[in-house]
Amino acid sequence: MLQTRRMLLTAVLLLTTMCTVVAQLPKLERIEPAFWWTGMQEPMVQLIVHGDKIAEREVSLSYTGVTLQEVHKVENPNYLFVDINIAASAEPGTFPIIFRQKGQKDIVYKYELKKREGSIKAQGVNSSDFVYLIMPDRFANGDKSNDVIKGMQEISLNRDSMYKRHGGDIQGIIDHLGYLQEMGVTTLWMTPLVTNDQPSASYHGYAATENYRIDPRFGSNEMYKRLADSLHKRGMKLVQDLVHNHIGSQHWTMKDLPMRNWVHQWPVFTRSNFRAAPLMDPYGAAADRKLMTEGWFDVHMPDLDQSNPYVRKYFTQSHIWWIEYAGVDAFRLDTYPYNDADFMAEWGKAIKAAYPGFTFFGEVWVRSGPEQVYFTQGNTVNRGLDTQLPGVTDFQSLWAISSALNEKAGWDDGIVKLYATLVQDYQYQDPMRNVVFLDNHDLSRFYSVVNGNKNKYKMALAWLLTTRGIPQLYYGAEIGMKNFSNPDGLVREDFKGGWAADTVNKFTPAGRNAEENELHDYISKLANYRKSNPVVQTGKLMQFIPQDNVYTYFRYNAEKTVMIVMNPNEKEMALPTARFSERTSGFTKAKDVISGNSASLSDSLHIPAMTTLVMELER
Amino acid sequence: MLQTRRMLLTAVLLLTTMCTVVAQLPKLERIEPAFWWTGMQEPMVQLIVHGDKIAEREVSLSYTGVTLQEVHKVENPNYLFVDINIAASAEPGTFPIIFRQKGQKDIVYKYELKKREGSIKAQGVNSSDFVYLIMPDRFANGDKSNDVIKGMQEISLNRDSMYKRHGGDIQGIIDHLGYLQEMGVTTLWMTPLVTNDQPSASYHGYAATENYRIDPRFGSNEMYKRLADSLHKRGMKLVQDLVHNHIGSQHWTMKDLPMRNWVHQWPVFTRSNFRAAPLMDPYGAAADRKLMTEGWFDVHMPDLDQSNPYVRKYFTQSHIWWIEYAGVDAFRLDTYPYNDADFMAEWGKAIKAAYPGFTFFGEVWVRSGPEQVYFTQGNTVNRGLDTQLPGVTDFQSLWAISSALNEKAGWDDGIVKLYATLVQDYQYQDPMRNVVFLDNHDLSRFYSVVNGNKNKYKMALAWLLTTRGIPQLYYGAEIGMKNFSNPDGLVREDFKGGWAADTVNKFTPAGRNAEENELHDYISKLANYRKSNPVVQTGKLMQFIPQDNVYTYFRYNAEKTVMIVMNPNEKEMALPTARFSERTSGFTKAKDVISGNSASLSDSLHIPAMTTLVMELER
Repeated sequence: MLQTRRMLLTAVLLLTTMCTVVAQLPKLERIEPAFWWTGMQEPMVQLIVHGDKIAEREVSLSYTGVTLQEVHKVENPNYLFVDINIAASAEPGTFPIIFRQKGQKDIVYKYELKKREGSIKAQGVNSSDFVYLIMPDRFANGDKSNDVIKGMQEISLNRDSMYKRHGGDIQGIIDHLGYLQEMGVTTLWMTPLVTNDQPSASYHGYAATENYRIDPRFGSNEMYKRLADSLHKRGMKLVQDLVHNHIGSQHWTMKDLPMRNWVHQWPVFTRSNFRAAPLMDPYGAAADRKLMTEGWFDVHMPDLDQSNPYVRKYFTQSHIWWIEYAGVDAFRLDTYPYNDADFMAEWGKAIKAAYPGFTFFGEVWVRSGPEQVYFTQGNTVNRGLDTQLPGVTDFQSLWAISSALNEKAGWDDGIVKLYATLVQDYQYQDPMRNVVFLDNHDLSRFYSVVNGNKNKYKMALAWLLTTRGIPQLYYGAEIGMKNFSNPDGLVREDFKGGWAADTVNKFTPAGRNAEENELHDYISKLANYRKSNPVVQTGKLMQFIPQDNVYTYFRYNAEKTVMIVMNPNEKEMALPTARFSERTSGFTKAKDVISGNSASLSDSLHIPAMTTLVMELER
Repeated sequence: MLQTRRMLLTAVLLLTTMCTVVAQLPKLERIEPAFWWTGMQEPMVQLIVHGDKIAEREVSLSYTGVTLQEVHKVENPNYLFVDINIAASAEPGTFPIIFRQKGQKDIVYKYELKKREGSIKAQGVNSSDFVYLIMPDRFANGDKSNDVIKGMQEISLNRDSMYKRHGGDIQGIIDHLGYLQEMGVTTLWMTPLVTNDQPSASYHGYAATENYRIDPRFGSNEMYKRLADSLHKRGMKLVQDLVHNHIGSQHWTMKDLPMRNWVHQWPVFTRSNFRAAPLMDPYGAAADRKLMTEGWFDVHMPDLDQSNPYVRKYFTQSHIWWIEYAGVDAFRLDTYPYNDADFMAEWGKAIKAAYPGFTFFGEVWVRSGPEQVYFTQGNTVNRGLDTQLPGVTDFQSLWAISSALNEKAGWDDGIVKLYATLVQDYQYQDPMRNVVFLDNHDLSRFYSVVNGNKNKYKMALAWLLTTRGIPQLYYGAEIGMKNFSNPDGLVREDFKGGWAADTVNKFTPAGRNAEENELHDYISKLANYRKSNPVVQTGKLMQFIPQDNVYTYFRYNAEKTVMIVMNPNEKEMALPTARFSERTSGFTKAKDVISGNSASLSDSLHIPAMTTLVMELER
């Protein structure tokens, strides 16, 4: 077993350039982070050192500006946690860290302090962006050489199974950045790329077995950095998907736990209750809260004990490492409410201190506004804790757009739910930081949610690109890919054309059918309009109470005013404009940004059945 | 017209003892408040004086401790607003207020300052109460002599029409206080009793034409005070229903407006949009906000301009007057969100300053928790304004109990909605001050909402009497009266037995059929259990995440623990108790407070299909 791990370590060294660990060292399995940088905001780095009875050795080092601050022994003698302090004056370079034991040969690890690249922007995502979400295994296979990596647990491809690997990779994504950029996408979020060396379902990426290494089946750390650089060259951004809550059952630490409370231990396997409610419930039971945050997400996903300071440090440092190494611009935080709230606040503070422009948003999959807002920073509701979480995935507006397009209209039903959901924004510090979306890898594709009704789907897309927040599109949504989330996996089908063997190529107009092109063109047109018109990105929003199941809102700034009208009714509706004078005053015409047609604002606008009109007002 | 009013005034004088106005005075139509008290918390009283060209006269008075502070002339010369200041040292007594004009005979009004009755408790309602809501016209006709009052606009009874007067009155209520008390009711709330001298639909009471006078068809001010005294003698309480937002179109001030901005004026009749959302919407349009608060509730209900300081003072004083005059214990505030928020805060402060133990709750008829909580005092969400509103009518838990009993169970549907709604209580300063209910005079009766399913109805009643907050029952609910709110009025049927002509008397066991007695006995048993067990009134609440569509919660204090289990499933459910050890620890048995049967807590409890069990835990 140890032998296998050593072999694996060697493989890592061959595949990445990040590690300067010297393979010949006896008994030293791993040091992470394998290298660091000078001039970081936080001077202390805690190295996790793993090796056979490593705790029996004395640690020493000598390098100008670097001090050995503290060496922590833990329950498992195969681990040491070594705090080193890097003064602002320390110069880039390498120095030996010596692990010494009487009567034994020294173990020497040459630690490198790199010079920080000045180009790291860590610029954050905001409502001026348009995010595209990719499951890398399912988008495009750009490098067949990494389809199968010997020595890993899942070593075959099977594109016929939704649970097996399909071969998509980073190179495949790099190959299609032009496609995305032309469509108006500004930002890429991929489900996790770090190594998931799990025996099954390793493709999805949410069961990490390594923290510092891109899964070799997706590429390499270098290739990830190349993707980031390519994005940045195009003026685009990179969002990295992080999982704080759990790791894979085959995570390297699981095979030789540093201490019992590295993960939450239960007498028998105990699943989370998947309910965030008890966390804020004034009547909540401790048992329910404990199950939520300490129960395991799945048998294959041990729940990290985030009250453990070593866990905290190890994960936080790895996240900072990725920003600094690859130039990540923002994080998406998986299963946010399942985490230890104190840890997440501490983590948020640390990230912001290190990279002030950086942003992140949490996946908060809950059913009500009060449950959702609870987790956000600076909200009006959470008295006890400043969560430090700038934004969330806005599930509430998702439920609302679904109701808006599928429900029979009523006083409180139908399009009014979209309106009413935004009203609840009064509880947020800044709802513009929330991510709006129609679907993702866990949800039914929205085209299926509206039962394949193209008009409804286009209505939803127009809303997505003009409402408040950071819009996010799921790969394939632009060509109207369908399916329901249950049974699992069907919404993770391959993007046709991403594989050399594919007989059609949906990345090209010629490969798309008429409907696919219509949808693709619609999104492209709106997304590019959005990209070139800050009013729709960051302009203020004003909404009016829906009447007759027609919803009217405006985005406006000093330069422009855009009027959006959603008519989900099955008939054309006449919309008298007098009511909107607060926003239409001074304008005479409304120009449909899709068709280019103008209509007079003087009396009523005529909104076709099941249509959202996006109109720029003209004087 | 003026003549008619004078005649009416004479009638008022004959019917009430509150007025010491001297009828022979020329040109003085009215002074309100007609009398006041010494030793009130607020020394200033603003008298509204109405009389032909009264503003042409000089005002003077002379009484030890009383000063004429200011005389305000307004647009209409038929009005004066006279501020008098009553020092703490002023003794009870009467003194003349003289209205003098050169060449005219003096008008002299003998103003009385009464001594405060020491017995006024103004004690407030809280979660130890059980409130019973009555529409006085529809409950019991105790005094046939006031069925028709000559000179009023609606002078006939028609029990066959839901929109006409039926003849119920205060005496009818007094006659049945024993019935209510035996049932476990502690508090009475009646829809408004002040004069509604409107030509149609005057029975409901929400279109006041007088502020200081009980509608003579209901009784008199004296009789109202007698009702209050009777309640207090029984240890019961009185809630008065106030309408700040609007008055009746025939309100005495409407016939000769003091000033244009006494009510909100519109070029043509303009109705409210009935939407509270724009008030808190960060994207709300001013036009929508204005329509909500300044649009009229109905053609017959002019919307008061509460930015007008004379309006503010006139209404606030009348409310204080009723507390002091009759000994009211709490107010229910009609159509709360339609009011001017600043005024309501100012009003709340004034009432609390005058009567520290007094409480009030607002009708906030909205669809979401964030809309509801916004209006309450000390919540976590409303940064701008301290509303001073202790509690609201909790429509959110009403929607939830309806879903709980009618919806197909699902992850977010069914009984879990009841649980999830209470979770949102984290946003309240004190959710125990909210009023919980199943129906009222505007809503479908809950027995119809559950489609006449007796088991479901009993489940709801058990919840009502054991969840957090102040439970409120609508008259007739105890005998399972049914009907839907649409068309209007059907839920306002007479309580059979309240009229001498009724052939059955549902106030007595003999007059009720088996089902009615079963429901009546069930409520009585639970309400009396509640009345004698503070644990269910004010004990803490702990709730557990529902599982298998079964919802378990506890009320507990230092003395007792009560376990409530709701099983809306159509089959008996076994409920393992281990999960609830936080609350069941130390107890061995659970005793059903209805049947008296005990069950062991050691393994599983068996909850019959469609049943709520209320169980007191035993050691």
